[in-house]
Amino acid sequence: MRKIGWDAEDAALQAEIMTAAELCGNNQGLVKMYNPSLMAPSPGAAKPTIERETPTSAVVNANQSPGMLAAVNAADLALQKLRSQDGPIAIVTAYNTSTSSGQLAFYCERMARQGAIGIALANSPEFVAAAPGGKPIFGTNPVAFGIPQAAGPPLTFDMATSAIALFGVLTSKAKGEPLPEGVAYGRDGGFTTDASEALEGGAIATFGGHKGAGLSLCVELLAGVLSGGAVVGQCESKKLAKSWGHTMIAIQPDLLVDGFEAKAAAVLAATKASGPSIRLPGESSARTAAERTAADALPIPKQIWESICRTAEHGLPEQ
Amino acid sequence: MRKIGWDAEDAALQAEIMTAAELCGNNQGLVKMYNPSLMAPSPGAAKPTIERETPTSAVVNANQSPGMLAAVNAADLALQKLRSQDGPIAIVTAYNTSTSSGQLAFYCERMARQGAIGIALANSPEFVAAAPGGKPIFGTNPVAFGIPQAAGPPLTFDMATSAIALFGVLTSKAKGEPLPEGVAYGRDGGFTTDASEALEGGAIATFGGHKGAGLSLCVELLAGVLSGGAVVGQCESKKLAKSWGHTMIAIQPDLLVDGFEAKAAAVLAATKASGPSIRLPGESSARTAAERTAADALPIPKQIWESICRTAEHGLPEQ
Repeated sequence: MRKIGWDAEDAALQAEIMTAAELCGNNQGLVKMYNPSLMAPSPGAAKPTIERETPTSAVVNANQSPGMLAAVNAADLALQKLRSQDGPIAIVTAYNTSTSSGQLAFYCERMARQGAIGIALANSPEFVAAAPGGKPIFGTNPVAFGIPQAAGPPLTFDMATSAIALFGVLTSKAKGEPLPEGVAYGRDGGFTTDASEALEGGAIATFGGHKGAGLSLCVELLAGVLSGGAVVGQCESKKLAKSWGHTMIAIQPDLLVDGFEAKAAAVLAATKASGPSIRLPGESSARTAAERTAADALPIPKQIWESICRTAEHGLPEQ
Repeated sequence: MRKIGWDAEDAALQAEIMTAAELCGNNQGLVKMYNPSLMAPSPGAAKPTIERETPTSAVVNANQSPGMLAAVNAADLALQKLRSQDGPIAIVTAYNTSTSSGQLAFYCERMARQGAIGIALANSPEFVAAAPGGKPIFGTNPVAFGIPQAAGPPLTFDMATSAIALFGVLTSKAKGEPLPEGVAYGRDGGFTTDASEALEGGAIATFGGHKGAGLSLCVELLAGVLSGGAVVGQCESKKLAKSWGHTMIAIQPDLLVDGFEAKAAAVLAATKASGPSIRLPGESSARTAAERTAADALPIPKQIWESICRTAEHGLPEQ
């Protein structure tokens, strides 16, 4: 990370966030270093600054620093706003970032580990169509929740509102494998399992039919428009505009209800016990992380490891 | 409504909310009067009261008044909290209600018509399983958004996190028609199209696979636990506990970004223009409402109309 232009602090933070994702098998991990130029600082990038503060809110101008840095800033600031007021809710947005924010669960878990409910939304460049036959307009527009609970680490739930994450499509393309059925549209607007076609002239689908499309639109409005990030209808290309938008909401449960964490734990236990095949969000990530920690080894695809080593030695490839 | 025990004010409000839903073809409309005893006041019910206020929050104890009344109170209070502080966000919860809140879009639109982004979540009695083979534990747990925008009335998006609304299942059962594929589980935990089996020994499914299930769980935690409403693991039966939980969040966009409503309108226009089959949330409801208004007629199923007339004349049936 330092070799591509980040200072020690920002490099460490980005490495921490990507490694945390990689540890639990999330697709927002070290794969980001496969094309390191996408992760390099924009020309003229500066550290994030705070704009428009109120006792319960702030707007973070990322000043073209990476989305991960902006998102950590926004999450930490949301917690700080929560602690320095008399009420139980705060909102912080971020915009003008140079890269995506990676795994939103990271920021929600960070808030929840300090006792706050964390909600995070992000919009992103146009890869997802609102319906069959539509041009790509939404990003994979993820939503995540971090919920403190008494019986263990916070529950984190992090989902793209698209039927498949962009990195899922890129992975299929790289491996030459077909996509699952029903997750992407081809050039003619019908479903395709060809990752290349989905990326060039086609689009990713939203999950869950019109409900997923509605949620994706709401994320575009709440994380894109509300943050001041780039959105369709306001710029020619979100990809070129480089301004991922984030909205973080932190809620302190104590001022609303007694014993939130114990009751949340009871709901999770009852949910888990409600059937033989019930898996709580985060369960398989936690298992993967535990296995990798126990093995003291992180399996990294050869091409990505080679890219990381090459970048560490030589920096960015010549243009 | 007065004949089953509500005072003039509460009767008028509940009638307004149900008729608004009926006008736009929403399944949370006058069908609620098919079984009027479910809509009658609980013994000892009182008007909602406010508990635990802060400058940015409140908790509404519905005192066993109906969910619709509690939800209107919570939405209006969220707006009031928004107006009387220096920041852009407020949260109000409600619990201890005697009935469901009906159509959440009503409350979000109410907030958005006054320039605020409205977000509403509600938990409800156990009809929905978290995965195939699971017992019903979640409610249909809806989420709704109201977004003010410059080019017309607010965008409202209101979705159950279940694959089908409870009233959809009840309607199938009443008509003797099969359910759509993939929306409900039978007694053996596999999918069924038999509405009776889904209601007795089976369960409704969540929408969108594990993502919908995760969202439903988050609504249970954010609208059920956070509000103090009845939740699994904390009571034997949510149905008997009669305490639907609501969480309303109101956000004033001006303090975060300039020109929110115009930018939101641009996103909606770009989304609509992105393909031939794109329908924005609320478009078909608005068309239905316009047609019914133009015809000056509200089509009401005969059995429901007869129930309304019978109730207006004789009150509740003898037990």
